[in-house]
Amino acid sequence: MSRRSYVLSLNCPDRVGIVAAVSQFVASHGGWITESSHHSDVESGRFFMRDQILADSLPFGGDGFREKFEPLARSFSMTWRLSDTSVPKRVALLVSREDHCLSDLLHRWRNREMEFDVPCVISNHETLRSFVEFHGIPFHHVPVSPEGREEAFRKIDALIAEGRGDCVVLARYMQVLPGWLTRKYEGRMLNIHHSFLPSFSGARPYHAAYERGVKLIGATCHYVTEELDGGPIIDQDVLRVDHGDTVADMMRLGRDVEKLVLARGVRYHLQDRVIIHGNKTVVFS
Amino acid sequence: MSRRSYVLSLNCPDRVGIVAAVSQFVASHGGWITESSHHSDVESGRFFMRDQILADSLPFGGDGFREKFEPLARSFSMTWRLSDTSVPKRVALLVSREDHCLSDLLHRWRNREMEFDVPCVISNHETLRSFVEFHGIPFHHVPVSPEGREEAFRKIDALIAEGRGDCVVLARYMQVLPGWLTRKYEGRMLNIHHSFLPSFSGARPYHAAYERGVKLIGATCHYVTEELDGGPIIDQDVLRVDHGDTVADMMRLGRDVEKLVLARGVRYHLQDRVIIHGNKTVVFS
Amino acid sequence: MSRRSYVLSLNCPDRVGIVAAVSQFVASHGGWITESSHHSDVESGRFFMRDQILADSLPFGGDGFREKFEPLARSFSMTWRLSDTSVPKRVALLVSREDHCLSDLLHRWRNREMEFDVPCVISNHETLRSFVEFHGIPFHHVPVSPEGREEAFRKIDALIAEGRGDCVVLARYMQVLPGWLTRKYEGRMLNIHHSFLPSFSGARPYHAAYERGVKLIGATCHYVTEELDGGPIIDQDVLRVDHGDTVADMMRLGRDVEKLVLARGVRYHLQDRVIIHGNKTVVFS
Amino acid sequence: MSRRSYVLSLNCPDRVGIVAAVSQFVASHGGWITESSHHSDVESGRFFMRDQILADSLPFGGDGFREKFEPLARSFSMTWRLSDTSVPKRVALLVSREDHCLSDLLHRWRNREMEFDVPCVISNHETLRSFVEFHGIPFHHVPVSPEGREEAFRKIDALIAEGRGDCVVLARYMQVLPGWLTRKYEGRMLNIHHSFLPSFSGARPYHAAYERGVKLIGATCHYVTEELDGGPIIDQDVLRVDHGDTVADMMRLGRDVEKLVLARGVRYHLQDRVIIHGNKTVVFS
Repeated sequence: MSRRSYVLSLNCPDRVGIVAAVSQFVASHGGWITESSHHSDVESGRFFMRDQILADSLPFGGDGFREKFEPLARSFSMTWRLSDTSVPKRVALLVSREDHCLSDLLHRWRNREMEFDVPCVISNHETLRSFVEFHGIPFHHVPVSPEGREEAFRKIDALIAEGRGDCVVLARYMQVLPGWLTRKYEGRMLNIHHSFLPSFSGARPYHAAYERGVKLIGATCHYVTEELDGGPIIDQDVLRVDHGDTVADMMRLGRDVEKLVLARGVRYHLQDRVIIHGNKTVVFS
Repeated sequence: MSRRSYVLSLNCPDRVGIVAAVSQFVASHGGWITESSHHSDVESGRFFMRDQILADSLPFGGDGFREKFEPLARSFSMTWRLSDTSVPKRVALLVSREDHCLSDLLHRWRNREMEFDVPCVISNHETLRSFVEFHGIPFHHVPVSPEGREEAFRKIDALIAEGRGDCVVLARYMQVLPGWLTRKYEGRMLNIHHSFLPSFSGARPYHAAYERGVKLIGATCHYVTEELDGGPIIDQDVLRVDHGDTVADMMRLGRDVEKLVLARGVRYHLQDRVIIHGNKTVVFS
Repeated sequence: MSRRSYVLSLNCPDRVGIVAAVSQFVASHGGWITESSHHSDVESGRFFMRDQILADSLPFGGDGFREKFEPLARSFSMTWRLSDTSVPKRVALLVSREDHCLSDLLHRWRNREMEFDVPCVISNHETLRSFVEFHGIPFHHVPVSPEGREEAFRKIDALIAEGRGDCVVLARYMQVLPGWLTRKYEGRMLNIHHSFLPSFSGARPYHAAYERGVKLIGATCHYVTEELDGGPIIDQDVLRVDHGDTVADMMRLGRDVEKLVLARGVRYHLQDRVIIHGNKTVVFS
Repeated sequence: MSRRSYVLSLNCPDRVGIVAAVSQFVASHGGWITESSHHSDVESGRFFMRDQILADSLPFGGDGFREKFEPLARSFSMTWRLSDTSVPKRVALLVSREDHCLSDLLHRWRNREMEFDVPCVISNHETLRSFVEFHGIPFHHVPVSPEGREEAFRKIDALIAEGRGDCVVLARYMQVLPGWLTRKYEGRMLNIHHSFLPSFSGARPYHAAYERGVKLIGATCHYVTEELDGGPIIDQDVLRVDHGDTVADMMRLGRDVEKLVLARGVRYHLQDRVIIHGNKTVVFS
């Protein structure tokens, strides 16, 4: 994504002529489409589309685009959005004590493999302060005690708002969030769960996987909803284990899958490649 | 496994000296071990072992081995068995209408990739008769109606016994077996389930996977127990799907995983590479 | 692909407005696009596109489509073709003695997982006659001796022509074809090579892989060109091996990868999902 | 590997009684073997073995073990070594500008996923100084100019010696090392090459992979020998790419494979799980 682009993503009832109308609109303004993806969902009769357009091929900016596109969008009853790749998303990171996902994401941030801003890292432990601060990123320690949960999450919410975070990534944050907070960030809060959902949702998934004697373990990146580990899945992956692997081995091996799956999920989200559709996702990877 | 071998597999309480005693026993009779695998289960304190020994390196046959090994086995409280690779297992195959697993297994049988005898194929449909009979294998059509279930399974049981089947493979057999039959073939009856268990057990797993929006689908080969899709898992695998895949696509793609996972599971079983341990397996693959 | 469709695939110099023009053309005739894929090759400045359109949504047949589309195609300097999913391709199969790929393809043919006709199977050995004839498919034994090579391939060419084969699949055919034959079927003759190309091209790839001590072995499906194992790659896959695997183990394990990779490659070809571009392929899978 | 253990690894001409003798030796001293792996190489007639023994189950330390084991080892003409898991290996890291492998390894070091000491990081660029020094590890900048190569490598050799490094990891170090240095660290110097060897050895492997149009890209961890990218392979892995992936995409995606493959290779080396055998490896993973 080296050249500044607009990403147009939309969905609407499927019918003849949507692609023709959208691509005709873009072409009529000289827009150069570098990537275009479509999906017709047969069951729901809904159509999904994502176009990536070189910004400097267009005679107007984002607001001009939005204004000119609106009538067309309305005529097809589209739900749509336009984003500008030169405006990086602001991602607040929540972590607990385990730092493999955090370390992985900050590496990709450091070497600009993925373009995003990190207004702050918030943790219920002090453990990772120095590593975060080495990166020049503010670190906030917000302990979560049984009796102080509500207050803690009010504070977390305020810290995210203060940092103007437009999305939240739970990079192995081991606390269940209150419903009001997950609703507030609906479709903008990603979690990594350390199992191949829907198997082993909830706590201690590696222990559960060990008990059941599965031969593959996995990880799932999903949008957070009120239902614990029940939100729309963005990406998943697995790796092979065998009878010789203890729970500790599974935890160790699983970390590598968790890192990769979260990084892919975050990438797709940052590049507006994900469209939520009911409790599922369309991912134009 | 071209050269005739004995496979010794055992498990017993873990302690110092088991491998020394067993390998000393084999070596003292000149036995040439071509493959040896061990596993110490820390949680249960149990030790598992499998040795493959060239038959012609030993001065006695299987019965002689068993007789001489018995005192040692008793002194370590071993559960053990010895099998002879020159005596192929007799595998009764149960199928319904879908033939991908059957076709795959019969190909491996035809070209002797895996050594086993097939006394008969039993199906609740006539569909696959000519393909089975082309291979010179008896085909039995045993319809299963709601009111005739018990009688049907008595007949199936009799057919397996008549063919002297020592194990049973459900190669996409779409009927739930009665408890008495699964108990009779405990540890000797393998099933292929078309999901990554424990997710989506029971009927129509691809539909359930589609509904949940998972990004990988899988298959599981397991021993059949009374609990539907709940027995010890032998092998599993998955493949990637995306939002563009319909249930029909998943069924099509899934067939390739089912074939591979069942073939591996059957191979492990035929070569006595699986030791059941509670509701889990040790697989010396 | 249950409903009859037209597949339009094209490539042309990249510029603004191609998708707009094509989709406008289709929409203006009421055409319902069920699948659409695009690719802009930045290096060569070439654009690739594949549309799948429901046949009964159009007011004309294939010839009508071709006639009406021709002016537009010319104005964009397109290389293009239109195929009809109700006209199955005729695939001549060449095999030697090993039947795993043949058996796999014929299974997919038998259960109509892939739609194609098999005018004949040609082999330099008699081995597989009965299995092929069981399927009601003509089997031709054409031995290839050092001195009779040219004559043998003339005969093979005649047999393919007689069966009106429009493409050829070398399903583990262990003879090198003469240049005139590979040129005649350029872009229509697929081979499965039992290594992860470009490593281990030529004869005995598993032996070479074993010698080098690689930790993964693979298979490659590619279009046949005059350069042995050098044509455009359609698909590849690998699987893990270790120090314990002999050449015989690699051959056995490799067969499963070969089957899958060839089946995928053939599927992509049959559904006109592959566009050759120099010595590479664009695969709209 | 939480409990202190000895790792005995050996190889010798294969014959009856090796396992019996070794396990009898260990058992006779009360040694508790927690992991045992064997391999008979049929082609060379050589036997390989690795035992992991709890240190506190033995009545003597490493030197006592070595002394007592020597006669037995001699009688079987063994090549063998004993290592102590409480003595971490000292790993000198060489890097250039790209830090993904370094960052990954230092994360595993930081959270003690793998036990090793890092006496120093040496680089031909200044780029990674602050990140390395954050970890409290000495960073040495040793530029390598065409005319100063020999001197630079003398200095690097001295720095490693000064840090008492007993092995060297080239974590994306983009300089070809002189023969005398690779010979000095034979079997103790690991490299990560960014291709699936033997394909695309040498410079710019992703460009070569892109040119050839392969559908999978890979990475290889191997011991360094005088032959560039020609040493014994420890581990390899691949990931899928398609026509839409540019060289830059391949580089980005490839980094994740490089990290994983190098980390696994280093882990196997650190835990004495690798035995070099000619130009191949036996890896008891």
